[in-house]
Amino acid sequence: MKRAHLFVVGVYLLSSCRAEEGLNFPTYDGKDRVVSLTEKNFKQVLKKYDLLCLYYHEPLSSDKVVQKQFQLKEIVLELVAQVLEHKDIGFVMVDAKKEAKLAKKLGFVEEGSLYVLKGDRTIEFDGEFAADVLVEFLLDLIEDPVEIINSKLEVQAFERIEDHIKLIGFFKSEESEHYKAFEEAAEHFQPYIKFFATFDKGVAKKLSLKMNEVDFYEPFMEEPIAIPDKPYTEEELVEFVKEHQRCPRWHSNFDSSLPQEDDLNGIHIVAFAERSDPDGYEFLEILKQVARDNTDNPDLSIVWIDPDDFPLLVAYWEKTFKIDLFKPQIGVVNVTDADSVWMEIPDDDDLPTAEELEDWIEDVLSGKINTEDDDNDEEDEDDDNDDDNSDEEDNDDSDDDDE
Amino acid sequence: MKRAHLFVVGVYLLSSCRAEEGLNFPTYDGKDRVVSLTEKNFKQVLKKYDLLCLYYHEPLSSDKVVQKQFQLKEIVLELVAQVLEHKDIGFVMVDAKKEAKLAKKLGFVEEGSLYVLKGDRTIEFDGEFAADVLVEFLLDLIEDPVEIINSKLEVQAFERIEDHIKLIGFFKSEESEHYKAFEEAAEHFQPYIKFFATFDKGVAKKLSLKMNEVDFYEPFMEEPIAIPDKPYTEEELVEFVKEHQRCPRWHSNFDSSLPQEDDLNGIHIVAFAERSDPDGYEFLEILKQVARDNTDNPDLSIVWIDPDDFPLLVAYWEKTFKIDLFKPQIGVVNVTDADSVWMEIPDDDDLPTAEELEDWIEDVLSGKINTEDDDNDEEDEDDDNDDDNSDEEDNDDSDDDDE
Repeated sequence: MKRAHLFVVGVYLLSSCRAEEGLNFPTYDGKDRVVSLTEKNFKQVLKKYDLLCLYYHEPLSSDKVVQKQFQLKEIVLELVAQVLEHKDIGFVMVDAKKEAKLAKKLGFVEEGSLYVLKGDRTIEFDGEFAADVLVEFLLDLIEDPVEIINSKLEVQAFERIEDHIKLIGFFKSEESEHYKAFEEAAEHFQPYIKFFATFDKGVAKKLSLKMNEVDFYEPFMEEPIAIPDKPYTEEELVEFVKEHQRCPRWHSNFDSSLPQEDDLNGIHIVAFAERSDPDGYEFLEILKQVARDNTDNPDLSIVWIDPDDFPLLVAYWEKTFKIDLFKPQIGVVNVTDADSVWMEIPDDDDLPTAEELEDWIEDVLSGKINTEDDDNDEEDEDDDNDDDNSDEEDNDDSDDDDE
Repeated sequence: MKRAHLFVVGVYLLSSCRAEEGLNFPTYDGKDRVVSLTEKNFKQVLKKYDLLCLYYHEPLSSDKVVQKQFQLKEIVLELVAQVLEHKDIGFVMVDAKKEAKLAKKLGFVEEGSLYVLKGDRTIEFDGEFAADVLVEFLLDLIEDPVEIINSKLEVQAFERIEDHIKLIGFFKSEESEHYKAFEEAAEHFQPYIKFFATFDKGVAKKLSLKMNEVDFYEPFMEEPIAIPDKPYTEEELVEFVKEHQRCPRWHSNFDSSLPQEDDLNGIHIVAFAERSDPDGYEFLEILKQVARDNTDNPDLSIVWIDPDDFPLLVAYWEKTFKIDLFKPQIGVVNVTDADSVWMEIPDDDDLPTAEELEDWIEDVLSGKINTEDDDNDEEDEDDDNDDDNSDEEDNDDSDDDDE
């Protein structure tokens, strides 16, 4: 049987051409594109590019391992510069020792960080130092800060985005001063928070938006919060978003930072669930249910991690938390010492119900379940080096914590 | 206002702990874990691991750029070995010159390839040579080859997977010989094609599956093909899948290969659309509509690429095809010379309708639109080196092709 096909490939195209035209994953061509930034060339370099990507690195070391690590980052940066050669983005290194004065002027704090200068904003890149992640981050930064929605299908696409904070506003036109304030506000959060707008009455009606109103959607919440007192200035919008984002940035792969209110004193409920896996999907649906049922409980916050987004960390988490990430997990993690307790899910074919989860969470919030009860092995979670003796104690995850 | 939250973070957790417990993206620790494979140590190494990952590399060169590229791959492989240290996977290098005999024995062909040995299967890794992609690939390879579906929510998750080939079978139990044949067949395609099974009558009924029947779903097709003549042997299943997969592998990021039937003589319809972008989503929905409307047209196949999945290639594609990938695109690509013609979409707020797309596709299939008509610049698409003079001719994408 022959049928029409919509291929969903991707690499297919390029790999198929590999032998012929070299449409292949790029490898570093050996050209030097990343320059050292000094006080002397700073102004000139800054003027030359729309976006400047700065790697603020520790002074060169004589340690061989440190040298290798530095070389790796250098090549990653060179590859990114090569790939984005036509995008008007500059790439520079700032030596923390040699250029201490310049670094101070730029407000750089942590050695090993990567910063992007865009206009008068400094954006820190917190993601994995890998070429693809970095390229995606930079491409997101040069896109328009506001995405326009103007059809029913686009509303559907907007509604499907449920795992990030999003904002949408309704304005008269691109020339409206209120839209301009919204656009300026969007730039403060790019690429971490997505801002949408519409100039279409039908779309606005479908989303129950009044003229010049902006709605703020939290992840997984179907009902938005309408930002009060429209129309707003740029500053009002920025302030509102900052206040409501709690976890200040959560744009998938290049993300970080602690929720601003830390109700559990450094203790967090963490759930691992693979969205693309049926068990993980089921577990996530149950979690969403719990989150929605408890929408008025300010004490509850759950951090959901999709292991698929962090392949490099899966084995590390499994070892640190002593869990199997091939199935869904939920637990309490103390972020100060990475100590943790995990809900017993005997079989991924028999996941807890929403009620069982709520009972468990109640026990966590009341302190009945906590990370200290099972602590007979304090010392073995401190470091990577004692790989081989830490597994022995796997079986003491005390069953009595779980009901 | 305070509310309960379901965070969707990911790195948040680890980054927040960064200062405290080092829950951070791993960097290479400098230990050597990747060994050179020789005829002498081959058997011993093979016996030691469930999975053996082999990098078949060209002989070491005196060229500095080639050396740097090799070093980079070496560090990537070391990092992967470090991250997966506890997963019983071996990592080795095979020098194409020194170990020519061994390579021949293993059936290795192309230098620079990465192979995985699992039992008596040799699986080629076609993806990007990056640590996260490689780790994900290897983790997928050590998972169970068949995923069990046993609840309504899991059926929902199964149904949501629409952009990959998938198979699902209904069997009496894990002990059933027919299930075992299915499981063996699944191993042939792991991790590229997903195999699901259920032992639950309710689930089977919902999916209209009879006992021992296996259904084959093509991407974006709601109605599956029931594989005829159940129950099947392993070989029958393997043969059926091979025959029907057309594009043999399309597991997102580590994927390649040409459709087996090449109806358009090396010419392909390629669509770029970002799933996570409202315009891209809208365009993709229109494409799916076209694919479904034309399900009985064996001449039509469309390759869909989500630029988000290939950040490293976006700039390259934009340059090669002279298109803007911040908006949806559809075109005809000649894979032998990468020559292409793209549909004129003046504004991403005004995408073509399904009818307009179908008319355009008809013109492509009839040859009315083809990649040769606009060829007044044959020479400038051959290589990467002539970056600067190829842009000048951007504007000759002849409008007369587009209606």
